[in-house]
Amino acid sequence: MREGTVNEAAKMLREWDDVLVLSHRSPDGDTLGSAAALVDALLSMGKRAMFRCADPIPEKFFYLFRELRLDAFVPAHIVTVDVADKALLGSLEPLGEQAELAIDHHFGSHRPFAACRWVEEAAACCMMVTRLIEAMGVEITPRIADALYTGIATDTGCFKYPSVTPETHRIAAMLLERGAHASKINTALFDTKTRTQIRLESAVYRGMEFYFDGKCAVVSLPGSLIAETGATESDLDGVSALARQVEGVVCGVTLRERGAGEYKVSLRTAEPVDAVPIARTFGGGGHRFAAGCTLHGTLEEVKARLLAACGEALGAR
Amino acid sequence: MREGTVNEAAKMLREWDDVLVLSHRSPDGDTLGSAAALVDALLSMGKRAMFRCADPIPEKFFYLFRELRLDAFVPAHIVTVDVADKALLGSLEPLGEQAELAIDHHFGSHRPFAACRWVEEAAACCMMVTRLIEAMGVEITPRIADALYTGIATDTGCFKYPSVTPETHRIAAMLLERGAHASKINTALFDTKTRTQIRLESAVYRGMEFYFDGKCAVVSLPGSLIAETGATESDLDGVSALARQVEGVVCGVTLRERGAGEYKVSLRTAEPVDAVPIARTFGGGGHRFAAGCTLHGTLEEVKARLLAACGEALGAR
Repeated sequence: MREGTVNEAAKMLREWDDVLVLSHRSPDGDTLGSAAALVDALLSMGKRAMFRCADPIPEKFFYLFRELRLDAFVPAHIVTVDVADKALLGSLEPLGEQAELAIDHHFGSHRPFAACRWVEEAAACCMMVTRLIEAMGVEITPRIADALYTGIATDTGCFKYPSVTPETHRIAAMLLERGAHASKINTALFDTKTRTQIRLESAVYRGMEFYFDGKCAVVSLPGSLIAETGATESDLDGVSALARQVEGVVCGVTLRERGAGEYKVSLRTAEPVDAVPIARTFGGGGHRFAAGCTLHGTLEEVKARLLAACGEALGAR
Repeated sequence: MREGTVNEAAKMLREWDDVLVLSHRSPDGDTLGSAAALVDALLSMGKRAMFRCADPIPEKFFYLFRELRLDAFVPAHIVTVDVADKALLGSLEPLGEQAELAIDHHFGSHRPFAACRWVEEAAACCMMVTRLIEAMGVEITPRIADALYTGIATDTGCFKYPSVTPETHRIAAMLLERGAHASKINTALFDTKTRTQIRLESAVYRGMEFYFDGKCAVVSLPGSLIAETGATESDLDGVSALARQVEGVVCGVTLRERGAGEYKVSLRTAEPVDAVPIARTFGGGGHRFAAGCTLHGTLEEVKARLLAACGEALGAR
């Protein structure tokens, strides 16, 4: 397993045909935008390309793939995008072991699995894919621009996060010039709430609990509440940020019950709290201010274990 | 009254001393950011400059003026920033009549009042002030960059709105390079909710009413609710966007009771509804997708008049 550069990645992709692009499970706008843009670029070069993800694509991201003609074939080469660990491929993990190229922006937490990895610190994997597509000599069409913009916007909270650099804005400017439908995408991703989401947010706000002098906020979404509000995975993703957004909170924890006794945990933090060590305690991972893990037990047990780890991170022990 | 250009505006300001900069009433991040940046630039040229606004500055914008030494003096020249109509100066309207320069981005709805007006179509008045400060030959310090970034971020919903152009992103890139503390500003402006705001949002979501097949959502904030939640003007500003954000809603109306029988109305629309004609019906104004007006009467009367106007705009008559 070796490290590569953008030019090496571009060279491989120019030479390859019959390429399979893999996204991580519980796919977000960045892994899907990266995959859609890369597949689109490969197709435009006359190659065969396909895409797979272990989990279904959330409805709000259907537009990324709507116009792409994906043929079925036996892949000759496998590329992963935005995948920090082969375990994050879910049921497609065996394919990850055969990957020849991993393109990922989880610098510092990427666990090598592909023959060649190109890993950089970037606000979004789509920042890297933008440069890759340019290096491949492929024209950025409005459809590719939409896919790239989608990943950048979703992974930066629409240019809000500390990961945003001048280059992020310059790439966004270029993508707008290439015809990205930015405001349409932003309205759909950031400014649209279903009535279900509104019911869910109301419930979240009513049930929010505060610990450690208000520095930690915990939201619990038991299966019964999820069923009652009719919330989908995509609805649930949207509420992970709410706990941390309360004034004074530097550690926001959202627990959602997935099955009997399984909780998917989203951690959102602010200076000085690093979310990664908390998530790692429970076998998870992610970024400095946004990480996740899965815990098993009763709600009270899971909450107690998480609060202990958060308290330690807050120096409240 | 004549029209001017950025270079003429820069020439005037370079030649002037003892300048008073005016912001519009109910000040937002764009009028305050424009004023703070311009005052800062004038001070850095060794001139005397001061700032006034008819209404108090919301606490979340205090940082814009914290480090500026504003001396009191009898102004020799008056400039307005982001003021589309002298009536929007509130109690300072008489000063507006003496203004020699109006810098404004409300292209199409600006009502001339200053001796010279420089009015352009721009995502934020701070976009124009950025170019002005460059034309004045003043260095953009981190503090000026913070003020300019604040206006651009607030008036574009952090780069989300249709008004964003490639230039908006390029200016943002430049401001980040000049030391703007973008993510700190964004966290404070967009990702922080007080517990009062949370109580308010919960109440808004519970009381939202839908009309015209769900195309119009109405939120009413009676004085009693405002008092009960302890919401400030600044808390209330934040909820004006919620009604329009519900899936399917193209006309979001938020009514807040200001005094006995006086309602401040915020209109937020999406294609194909233009908010300006609705607001104009009641003597208000604004932008295509965000406008406002003030109505008098009982809540039911005010709501009925607004719904009639919205229904007409929706072609539902």
